[in-house]
Amino acid sequence: MMNKQKGKLLVVSGPSGCGKGTVLKKVLKENSNIYYSVSATTRAPRYGEENGIHYYFITKEEFEKKISEGGMLEYAEYVGNYYGTPKDIVLAKLEKGYDVILEIEVKGAMQIRKAVPEAILVFIAPPSMEELEKRLIGRGTEKLDVIKSRLKKAEKEMQYQNEYDYLVINDEISIAAEEIAAILKSEKLKINKN
Amino acid sequence: MMNKQKGKLLVVSGPSGCGKGTVLKKVLKENSNIYYSVSATTRAPRYGEENGIHYYFITKEEFEKKISEGGMLEYAEYVGNYYGTPKDIVLAKLEKGYDVILEIEVKGAMQIRKAVPEAILVFIAPPSMEELEKRLIGRGTEKLDVIKSRLKKAEKEMQYQNEYDYLVINDEISIAAEEIAAILKSEKLKINKN
Repeated sequence: MMNKQKGKLLVVSGPSGCGKGTVLKKVLKENSNIYYSVSATTRAPRYGEENGIHYYFITKEEFEKKISEGGMLEYAEYVGNYYGTPKDIVLAKLEKGYDVILEIEVKGAMQIRKAVPEAILVFIAPPSMEELEKRLIGRGTEKLDVIKSRLKKAEKEMQYQNEYDYLVINDEISIAAEEIAAILKSEKLKINKN
Repeated sequence: MMNKQKGKLLVVSGPSGCGKGTVLKKVLKENSNIYYSVSATTRAPRYGEENGIHYYFITKEEFEKKISEGGMLEYAEYVGNYYGTPKDIVLAKLEKGYDVILEIEVKGAMQIRKAVPEAILVFIAPPSMEELEKRLIGRGTEKLDVIKSRLKKAEKEMQYQNEYDYLVINDEISIAAEEIAAILKSEKLKINKN
C-alpha cells in the first residue's frame, strides 16, 4: 500500500563522536521509506566523493542565488565554503510521502525549527562526556589537541539539547536506532490539533 | 539496568469491536514494563472473576468514600453500579517506573485528561465503520439489535478521537501493537519543555 500521508522531516544533531552517523545508517538500513538528505556545498569534491551522494557540489554563485531565492532550508559558511540543505529536494521527498532525515549541526537545526515548524528535532547524545572522550580517542584518527577542541565544541552543543523535541542517548547503537524509528512511527500517529 | 524514570500513563479508548483488547494483550505480552490497570467496581463478581485480576470488587460505601476523598482517577455509574480507576495503585506503579495502561471509555478518558495532564491518550479505531460492523457480526455472540446499538455508540465515540493525542487504526493487530509500543517509547524520549 502506498503511503499517501506526507512524510516527516527529522532533524538530527549531536556532538562529533557520539555515533550519530552509525545510528542513522542503521535506521536507514531498516526503514526503506526514509530519504537521507544530501547537503549542497561549494567546496571542491575530495577523492572518491560523488555528486548527489556525498554532496551536491555547486558553485558559489549558484549557492548564493539559492540563498537569495529562499532555496536553502538552512546553511552555514565554514572556512570560506558554504554548506546547506536544498529546500526543493527535501520538500519534494516529503510530498511523495518519504520521511527525510537531515543530519546537521545545532545552528542549522535552529534555522530549520524556524523555517519548518513541523520538523521533528532529535538530539543524539553520548552516555557521558567521559564516554565521548573515550570514543574520540578510540577512533585513533585525531591528535589530542583536535580531540580536546572537539570536546569543547561538544560541551557547547550539548547546551542546545533542550531546544530539541527528543533526546536519544547513544549507549547502544541498536537501541538508539530503534528509538529513532519509534519517534518517526509515533509522530505519524499524532492527532493534528490545529 | 533499572528504569529510574517515572512511568507513563497511557489511556486507551476505542469503540467496542475495534479489537483494542486483543491489541493491548499483545502489547502487554511484548513489553514487561507495563502494568495493565484493574478497575474497581461495586457490582458482584461473575462466575470465574477474581478480585484484583478482573476487577477490584468493593462495596458501594467504599467506592463512595474513595470518590469523596479524590481517590478515583475517573469513574462512572452504569445500571446502579460504580466502575472506576483507583488512583493510589496507578500512581504507585508509575512512581516505580512502570508504564500503566488504562483501557477506558471516552468519558473516563476525558476525566483523566483533566486529572493527569501528562497522561497520553490513544484512540484505537477500526479501519472503517463497515469493517467494525463485520467484526461485531463475526463475533457471533450478539443479536442484531445489540450490534446496531453498539454501532450507534461507536459512531458517537469516534467523534471524540480528536480529543486524543494519537490515533491508531487497528487494521492488523501486530502493527497496531507495534504502534502503541512506539508511542510509549518515543514519549519517554521527549524533552520536557516546562
